[in-house]
Amino acid sequence: MGEANTNTWIDGVPADALPLPDRAFAYGDGLFETILLRGDRPLLPEFHLDRLGAGLQRLHFPDCLESVRKHLAQAAASSPDSSPFRVLRLTVSRGPGPRGYAPPADCRPRVIISVSALASDPTEMAAPANLGETAVRWARQPLLAGLKHLNRLEQVLAAADCDAQGTDEVLLLEQSGAPLSVSAGNLFLVAGKSLLTPVLNEAGIAGTRRRLVLERLATACGLRVTESRLELSQLLGADELFYCNTVVGLRPVAAFRDRRWRRHPVTRDLHAAYVECLRE
Amino acid sequence: MGEANTNTWIDGVPADALPLPDRAFAYGDGLFETILLRGDRPLLPEFHLDRLGAGLQRLHFPDCLESVRKHLAQAAASSPDSSPFRVLRLTVSRGPGPRGYAPPADCRPRVIISVSALASDPTEMAAPANLGETAVRWARQPLLAGLKHLNRLEQVLAAADCDAQGTDEVLLLEQSGAPLSVSAGNLFLVAGKSLLTPVLNEAGIAGTRRRLVLERLATACGLRVTESRLELSQLLGADELFYCNTVVGLRPVAAFRDRRWRRHPVTRDLHAAYVECLRE
Repeated sequence: MGEANTNTWIDGVPADALPLPDRAFAYGDGLFETILLRGDRPLLPEFHLDRLGAGLQRLHFPDCLESVRKHLAQAAASSPDSSPFRVLRLTVSRGPGPRGYAPPADCRPRVIISVSALASDPTEMAAPANLGETAVRWARQPLLAGLKHLNRLEQVLAAADCDAQGTDEVLLLEQSGAPLSVSAGNLFLVAGKSLLTPVLNEAGIAGTRRRLVLERLATACGLRVTESRLELSQLLGADELFYCNTVVGLRPVAAFRDRRWRRHPVTRDLHAAYVECLRE
Repeated sequence: MGEANTNTWIDGVPADALPLPDRAFAYGDGLFETILLRGDRPLLPEFHLDRLGAGLQRLHFPDCLESVRKHLAQAAASSPDSSPFRVLRLTVSRGPGPRGYAPPADCRPRVIISVSALASDPTEMAAPANLGETAVRWARQPLLAGLKHLNRLEQVLAAADCDAQGTDEVLLLEQSGAPLSVSAGNLFLVAGKSLLTPVLNEAGIAGTRRRLVLERLATACGLRVTESRLELSQLLGADELFYCNTVVGLRPVAAFRDRRWRRHPVTRDLHAAYVECLRE
């Protein structure tokens, strides 16, 4: 299979290939996290590990968080280069197993980590984005809602649609028609001194940056924040819109349908508070 | 990674591990087929390739069916053992790609095939099954309905629930409450000279054995067959119930809730017609 890629590890061992069979490959039977590294330090590790732990429980994996912590620290410390920030993807697969959907009784999860360079600087707020729309809607699945599991075809299709349109991001609705997220991030709207974000109990991914806005950044900026079902009309009437994920941080929206936003003072404030968190 | 497993091939080359990165592993970005081999011959290959081809189109993969055909024939002919039947799993992954949901412009799909022994004899009708129930419901996703794609967490959770209950299979409902399938197979009910099976335009997998019943076996047995939305009361009131998949063929249901079925004459007829098809 060629030489081992020194930026990928499986259970702590440098690897360039995943031993087969593997249930992440076979069924998307696993979870992942995309973690920002500053130097050799993972940022917001507890937010990532909390969500991962919740997913492990929901999918009835054996508790392997201690081994995840160990492999995460090891990979973050390995092969640092001169760039201030890197991106680490941490995947937990249910591991090997015989043919068939049922997980094996003696399942042995695998931790697969890869580290990549980051072209952008997450401390700089990205240029305001053009937000398109996609016909790809989130399926309603309360058993999996909020988790960052490996069944991501909806987002693959939405991201492909976004690329085809040439927009920066696309809005995904729930099957019911309520706005839920962008293809790779959570959505917030600003209305006066309030923030609103879609509730995620039926679909979507509960992002770590979303949690940070809810628990710390809103308060730091003197804003109230509410999770609720949103309507498209609320997006179009908002003072500002932004989306957030680990790689871009918080990114304001410049245009959606016929609406334009030229100033983004609240998003800018929140982004400044976010950068402070990254520096802690 | 140890020695190559001679029962697995990637793009025609014996392999024991999947080169990383790979989008089937990262996002479940791919499709699969479970194909019965009699000796070195794939059974119902066109049914499998039709569904796979439809999936490749729906997911906007490059057309790689010719290469799939070639690798399927090669793997089926390799390492035959003395068993009359084997099971071949054929997976098409979107292949490598950089971080991020959007498929790369120059995507190079991979064909991963593994062949396993089959403990059971698909020409013998399996003993009537005890059918349990699961709280895992199919999400409604018309864009993916019918495909045998790699996002299979719902079925993993349902199969785990089935194992925990100790039943042979479990019934999965749609979110709306309509019966849709079992964890690994399609569902039919017999009412007089009619067969009914759930319509699959919003969820579920359009099984090859389901298609065979619809297109050939029902007619061969003098039955009408209809796809429609089913109610639980129809299942409980049915003359017979059966489910079907590649590995078990057609399997009658012996018990569901407080209902017992002691005779399965229609399922038995259909199974006999099925065995004839396997012999063609």
